[in-house]
Amino acid sequence: MKVNLYHLGMSSDTHDFPKLFGDVKFVCCGGSSKRMEKLANYFTENLPVNYPYGFKPENLCHSDRYVMYKVGPVLCVNHGMGHGSISTMLHEVLKLLRMANCKDTTFFRIGTSGGLGLPGGTVVISESVVDDLLEESFEMHILGKRVRKPTHLDSSLNKELLKIATELNYNAVIGKTLCSNDFYEGQARLDGAFCDYSKEEKLQFLQKAHIKGVKNIEMESSCFSAFCTRANVRAAVICVTLLNRLEQDQIDVVDELEEWEQRPVNVVTQYIAHHFNDAYN
Amino acid sequence: MKVNLYHLGMSSDTHDFPKLFGDVKFVCCGGSSKRMEKLANYFTENLPVNYPYGFKPENLCHSDRYVMYKVGPVLCVNHGMGHGSISTMLHEVLKLLRMANCKDTTFFRIGTSGGLGLPGGTVVISESVVDDLLEESFEMHILGKRVRKPTHLDSSLNKELLKIATELNYNAVIGKTLCSNDFYEGQARLDGAFCDYSKEEKLQFLQKAHIKGVKNIEMESSCFSAFCTRANVRAAVICVTLLNRLEQDQIDVVDELEEWEQRPVNVVTQYIAHHFNDAYN
Repeated sequence: MKVNLYHLGMSSDTHDFPKLFGDVKFVCCGGSSKRMEKLANYFTENLPVNYPYGFKPENLCHSDRYVMYKVGPVLCVNHGMGHGSISTMLHEVLKLLRMANCKDTTFFRIGTSGGLGLPGGTVVISESVVDDLLEESFEMHILGKRVRKPTHLDSSLNKELLKIATELNYNAVIGKTLCSNDFYEGQARLDGAFCDYSKEEKLQFLQKAHIKGVKNIEMESSCFSAFCTRANVRAAVICVTLLNRLEQDQIDVVDELEEWEQRPVNVVTQYIAHHFNDAYN
Repeated sequence: MKVNLYHLGMSSDTHDFPKLFGDVKFVCCGGSSKRMEKLANYFTENLPVNYPYGFKPENLCHSDRYVMYKVGPVLCVNHGMGHGSISTMLHEVLKLLRMANCKDTTFFRIGTSGGLGLPGGTVVISESVVDDLLEESFEMHILGKRVRKPTHLDSSLNKELLKIATELNYNAVIGKTLCSNDFYEGQARLDGAFCDYSKEEKLQFLQKAHIKGVKNIEMESSCFSAFCTRANVRAAVICVTLLNRLEQDQIDVVDELEEWEQRPVNVVTQYIAHHFNDAYN
């Protein structure tokens, strides 16, 4: 039976999944399409991948919903913003890997985030994820019922990533991540089109999260960790903080942005490089 | 104070919003970036907009999160998939219009959807929106609390759109829309990476929605209608159905796809053309 990965623009009629994707061992994802293109080019230059002079990774998605690049055993896919967008990508990438008979795949979400009580540029590796109700699980609605799925992440993988980040001299921590499906009100920002609460109420909420061990805030980690747990794949969420949300709402970093965004990329690149030979055994 | 529309890549330092956007009267949005580019080109050719030979609409977003085109009084913006993505766009576009001092703006979401008991190609104009718990409102999480916002849409605007669709000889209905922040399990599909329910349970859920008056299913209308209601702007959701979800899950339409996708566009184009002169008075 034909399997159609509608939003990736691929199907079993047009793609020989085992042949094309059977060697995939790492899936790296992040929100922005340009950042994933940059990531694929970076992997091409910094991993021992064989590719002929004059070639570069091409976008494999035949739709404009996502971009996907393949650099040897590494897939780079963007997921857009929020649960609705990342869940669609994860369903279809997990189906792709299953059809390709991939085994022992490790997933990374590499991203940016707001920090809680941390200076900008800190690398946060998520231990587990709480939602914007501060519950440590991911709420899905299935056949009209609320269902909760666990959002734990792999502690041994996290320790290895922290060791690399520390060796790279980055300010890096392992901690909880707060995930909201909303950039403004779900994250207690005061500067959206609507805001029905005061600065004091905002800070009370963020302090409450901070006391619970939350180190940073973003928009996809709960769905990502829940899906990877369900699919029984190892996964890590590694994000850099762009601001301290206890101090401000607007992201105004310009000069350091590129170097900061590169930090989780460098950590994951070193991790993959260490495990590159395992990938082909 | 500088206002930064981070995900649009625009700010009050770089853009004179009243001068550049002060004449906007219509905002048309849809998920896909390419569809919005096509829409802007179509409006350029089919609305009485003055533009010099040799020019075409350019993407105004200085980020890769969204695309935005301006064709006279019409903005075309994509919103990606799901609530997390559309809410960020709406916050920033509503702030842009406020800074530009725009008055009496009408918003359209133009999209594709799964139909319930309707043939593919049917134009569905949303009367109101139920979520994937079948509740007729939009649930947000603000400062850690669940909050519900109304999801009604403008009935007089809907009647005018239905009249145009009927005159264009399209199969068209006004009815409820089911909105889920999930393409697979939230919409009771059997073909995601995970599925913990049977075909019978799926059909029971879809029939229950159908009996409640649901005509189609998509992923952004609850957030869209709730935001437009809060912002006190007139809004309509007009989507074409690509399949009958009581019969199938996979979208396999190919030959008719382009013509079907064009149907809501043609309806909205005629609506804007009728009201074009009002826009400049």
